[in-house]
Amino acid sequence: MSLLTIGTVAFDDIETPFGKADKVIGGACTYASYAASYFTDNIRLCSIVGVDFPTEEIKSLENRGVDMTGLQIKQDGLTFFWAGKYHENMNQRDTLVTDLNVLDDFNPTLPEAYKDSKYVLLGNLTPDIQIQVMNQLDGSQELIVLDTMNFWMDVAMDSLLEAISKIDVITINDEEARQLSGEYSLVNAAEKIHKMGPKHIVIKKGEHGALLFSEGKIFSAPALPLAQVFDPTGAGDTFAGGFIGYLAHTEDTSFENLKRALIYGSCMASFCVEEFSIERLRDLSNDQIVQRIEKFRTLTQFDV
Amino acid sequence: MSLLTIGTVAFDDIETPFGKADKVIGGACTYASYAASYFTDNIRLCSIVGVDFPTEEIKSLENRGVDMTGLQIKQDGLTFFWAGKYHENMNQRDTLVTDLNVLDDFNPTLPEAYKDSKYVLLGNLTPDIQIQVMNQLDGSQELIVLDTMNFWMDVAMDSLLEAISKIDVITINDEEARQLSGEYSLVNAAEKIHKMGPKHIVIKKGEHGALLFSEGKIFSAPALPLAQVFDPTGAGDTFAGGFIGYLAHTEDTSFENLKRALIYGSCMASFCVEEFSIERLRDLSNDQIVQRIEKFRTLTQFDV
Repeated sequence: MSLLTIGTVAFDDIETPFGKADKVIGGACTYASYAASYFTDNIRLCSIVGVDFPTEEIKSLENRGVDMTGLQIKQDGLTFFWAGKYHENMNQRDTLVTDLNVLDDFNPTLPEAYKDSKYVLLGNLTPDIQIQVMNQLDGSQELIVLDTMNFWMDVAMDSLLEAISKIDVITINDEEARQLSGEYSLVNAAEKIHKMGPKHIVIKKGEHGALLFSEGKIFSAPALPLAQVFDPTGAGDTFAGGFIGYLAHTEDTSFENLKRALIYGSCMASFCVEEFSIERLRDLSNDQIVQRIEKFRTLTQFDV
Repeated sequence: MSLLTIGTVAFDDIETPFGKADKVIGGACTYASYAASYFTDNIRLCSIVGVDFPTEEIKSLENRGVDMTGLQIKQDGLTFFWAGKYHENMNQRDTLVTDLNVLDDFNPTLPEAYKDSKYVLLGNLTPDIQIQVMNQLDGSQELIVLDTMNFWMDVAMDSLLEAISKIDVITINDEEARQLSGEYSLVNAAEKIHKMGPKHIVIKKGEHGALLFSEGKIFSAPALPLAQVFDPTGAGDTFAGGFIGYLAHTEDTSFENLKRALIYGSCMASFCVEEFSIERLRDLSNDQIVQRIEKFRTLTQFDV
């Protein structure tokens, strides 16, 4: 089933306790598209880069079945650039540089062929752009997933609430869910956010996994405990990509299948953090994914 | 199967965003014994209180099948007293008062009838006392569980390491596991702590649940997401009590059964936090526990 991914494609400088990587490939849309590509074909990417973005990276995504028609390449601009540094606690990071560059005047126009995409992942961008993309869709969508962050709650809350009112699933981290709802308990936070529009609420908790709130039910997906988290950049986007990729493939948005999608998302995120940038997501085998899913099964399943 | 619980029996003053409770019943041993009493008979409590401790509270534990012969009542002293305040983030608290009182010269002498206890829970106390208790046991024990905290790592690390070398299971929170091992990753932390002695490592993560590391395998038990955590005091002790109570009842320390015990421990902790002090643990029905366990099942079980 067709899947539209929209969000940033970027260069990142990343420093972690394990090393440093300069000008590597990043961006929410990149991570999400790679992750989704392991589950579904017919992925349509919409983003913007500058003239400095390597052609071979565009080809690399095309080779994974991602339609790159919707990637604007601005000949007079540079690709969005982010630099960050992680400390020992990998759940926290300092942003050192944010150069919006071409992202500053990103004005997405969906190619005609994208408008009937049945599954849509609106990566973290200004809520106005997320709305603008939804307004271009043909109305035949089965599931729209939106990712956002606290920054937009601080500077564009009205637009964010409008965007949230139009979607089916929101993915948000625990602190952001608390900020958006004004509730400390995640159960209460999810209930309030549900009233803002989304039928399903996915709360990401980093190394503690993720929670799905839907139809009055709750599902808890663990993160895989790892000996070494090499680089957490993009883990949340990879999670979202695996999640919607699995849903687009199975064409089933029942609670039971959303649970599975959450596990597949967590599985892809567990790969993502094992190497810098998107390196670990470039070439996974089906066997590796099946074995990793089995690890999630043994990690959580019990018999009472 | 017989179960020995040793630790504090206390009075607590507790303040949470939901209210204030003065001079209520507390103490690790109290919480653990109540929790265990829902799974096994033949619980033997060893602790110390002052002349101010209410006789009806001793009877209340006896009524739940707890042998109170090992409770020393010092006629010239007052019961251990702790006062604490929780903020909105219930994972953190300020200690306002710690009056050791009779605990200051607690010198436990196990009643003869206690020495063959097959399951032993050494609640958080000075490591020297934990060792002293182990030295009085008759050597026929099947499982010794030790709980501790960062304070003893700061002031009595050598004794703590000696205590840890003699036990089967350690329960410890995530920050403490990191401090004890010098490792940030909980996988690596558990591996290092395993080398200190314990066969099984249980890492408590508060609202994020608990992890069991054993025989090279990992199990993740969630905490139940709750709309309202009324008072988290004693949740970790209740968890430990439910955990060892279930093991003492089933007499099975296989990995599969340890997993179940972790779920039963989490289940009891989820009740504990619903009211101040031990109130919620006084009179649960079997049906309530079965229904709560079912909630844990639906919260985590998936089918891939």
